[in-house]
Amino acid sequence: MKTLEVDLGDRSYPIHIGTDLIDQAQLFSACEKATSIYIVSNTTVAPLYAERLTKTLEKLGKPVRTIVLPDGESYKDWKNLQLIFDDLLKYGADRQTMLVALGGGVIGDMTGFAAASFMRGIRFIQVPTTLLSQVDSSVGGKTGINHPLGKNMIGAFHQPVAVIADLNTLKTLPARELSAGLAEVVKHGAIADAEFLSWIEVNAKALLACDTAAMAHAVLRSCEIKSAVVSADEREGGIRATLNFGHTFGHAIEAGMGYGEWLHGEAVGCGMVMGADLSKRLNFITQDEVNRLTHIIQSMNLPITPPKFGAQRYMELMQVDKKTEGGQIRYVVLEKIGKAQIKSVPDAQVIETLTATGAV
Amino acid sequence: MKTLEVDLGDRSYPIHIGTDLIDQAQLFSACEKATSIYIVSNTTVAPLYAERLTKTLEKLGKPVRTIVLPDGESYKDWKNLQLIFDDLLKYGADRQTMLVALGGGVIGDMTGFAAASFMRGIRFIQVPTTLLSQVDSSVGGKTGINHPLGKNMIGAFHQPVAVIADLNTLKTLPARELSAGLAEVVKHGAIADAEFLSWIEVNAKALLACDTAAMAHAVLRSCEIKSAVVSADEREGGIRATLNFGHTFGHAIEAGMGYGEWLHGEAVGCGMVMGADLSKRLNFITQDEVNRLTHIIQSMNLPITPPKFGAQRYMELMQVDKKTEGGQIRYVVLEKIGKAQIKSVPDAQVIETLTATGAV
Repeated sequence: MKTLEVDLGDRSYPIHIGTDLIDQAQLFSACEKATSIYIVSNTTVAPLYAERLTKTLEKLGKPVRTIVLPDGESYKDWKNLQLIFDDLLKYGADRQTMLVALGGGVIGDMTGFAAASFMRGIRFIQVPTTLLSQVDSSVGGKTGINHPLGKNMIGAFHQPVAVIADLNTLKTLPARELSAGLAEVVKHGAIADAEFLSWIEVNAKALLACDTAAMAHAVLRSCEIKSAVVSADEREGGIRATLNFGHTFGHAIEAGMGYGEWLHGEAVGCGMVMGADLSKRLNFITQDEVNRLTHIIQSMNLPITPPKFGAQRYMELMQVDKKTEGGQIRYVVLEKIGKAQIKSVPDAQVIETLTATGAV
Repeated sequence: MKTLEVDLGDRSYPIHIGTDLIDQAQLFSACEKATSIYIVSNTTVAPLYAERLTKTLEKLGKPVRTIVLPDGESYKDWKNLQLIFDDLLKYGADRQTMLVALGGGVIGDMTGFAAASFMRGIRFIQVPTTLLSQVDSSVGGKTGINHPLGKNMIGAFHQPVAVIADLNTLKTLPARELSAGLAEVVKHGAIADAEFLSWIEVNAKALLACDTAAMAHAVLRSCEIKSAVVSADEREGGIRATLNFGHTFGHAIEAGMGYGEWLHGEAVGCGMVMGADLSKRLNFITQDEVNRLTHIIQSMNLPITPPKFGAQRYMELMQVDKKTEGGQIRYVVLEKIGKAQIKSVPDAQVIETLTATGAV
């Protein structure tokens, strides 16, 4: 097992990465001060791991209950968030209750937001069971739900007290979800570590085969990159926004298709192809580098051609993204491979990218 | 005009108290960095002040829109909170948008929670127009909405960037709401300042007549007491909970009657009578002091006899209050007039109080 610390002053927390961590009660020691523990999971993940996790948590001598939500991005809304609050109140949860998110990004985001807003804030632990959540969403404290007019529009910054990434849970992931998670791994290389990107390029097959050693490195390095960025800029005033590389285009794809049609990672993968093209148009990277990044994304079995919504629809969809300021869209572009920056870009250049990548 | 500062490090903010403040654009200078401004108000207050406030804010050169919610505690729920998000997204609000809460405690709590969770946090200004919100809810950063199983169960700590208390708005308050606000004024004396309580006792008639000089002192001293407590304990780990004197019983009355039947301040007034009786049973204060406090509360035209729900129902209703810990209810009691503390109390003694005050 490897442990790394996210450095956020009195909100610092450990990320544990290894195998069979779900069975190790001492990793959940933050529960010792809790009055009760609620596992929040979904209909896919709960049957696989909820019982094992319950047994582990019961060793701490606290009452443990499980709340099971429907599975999928389309359920990441107020109505399902309310199901968490309903059960917490029905069974007498209080300010010392601990929530444990057992699942992927949707479960982590919803459980985190429930923890942020239940009685104005209780503690929670992330037990991410998908690659996407292990390398991205479970780290950094972004929580929230979707609004019909935009993804993650309602939420809070609320840090977990621990992240426990059990690599064995990745073995049961459908191939499509594994690829979606690899999109964020590629992203971390592209924006922050050219050497890591080369390692990913060489190890693509081992990663796609979910080889434990390869996965351990990919998760650890991703968490290191992400937590360093988050420690420097917890509330996304500056550098943290570079983690959104591929996301402005990606969110537009997700929203335009209807949440859940494309997986988040698929949309981000394709969005990075578009972001790379835009970076080239700003004379930051070469066409060869665009081609190389596109090839890496494609080698992870991710889509590289966006849906043909047309330029106007893309601009509308991107306009509601949280990164706009005074109506102006802000894009994450690659200054070079391994370094990103935030830029306002004239619409004309964005439309060139939309056209060149097949979105128009 | 008097200005006092709530000292919370980088979340510090001024409270301005005076007459005709709604017309003074320089008090809203925090809006200078905003991309747009949304006033959130209700169907009662908007017709009185929204146009004046809009004119003032437009002097800052920003687009100003008004969102009007239905009026009343029974609308303090997710459905109506959603109306704020709907408009913000429909009209292109972003992370630099400023919300301005124009109304009483319900509008302040909902606008504050909307600001806390829209795009994971934007700024807001409180313009409280009721006495209750000027002396209590607009100060301290508690925001939230009700859940069918409990009041203010979903929310956030989110500090405003300024509170602007225009005493003239109190002139249009119905007598019943003025009395409800005076309950919290009395509370501040009871828990923190015996001399202030004596001043209230002497000036009861001037306060009930909404005399501007008397009101200015009552609002200022209340804000001073509350902001000192909040500065010492922003997230209610300790002393802040003493501000809940009368609230455990009061919340039970509100929930048991159905939100909106009793005004919050009425329930708190009656709850303080019950809290005083409980304090006497713990040998903290004398029967004479209970009688004196009861008389002051009654002189503000507040109810002093709780509804007869019976002991079991009261205990159930108080059980879901946020102040429970591991199922144990924690009461705020008066150590003496002008000093409060938090205590777990055996059910038997609480039931004695319920019986003695007419709740059983």
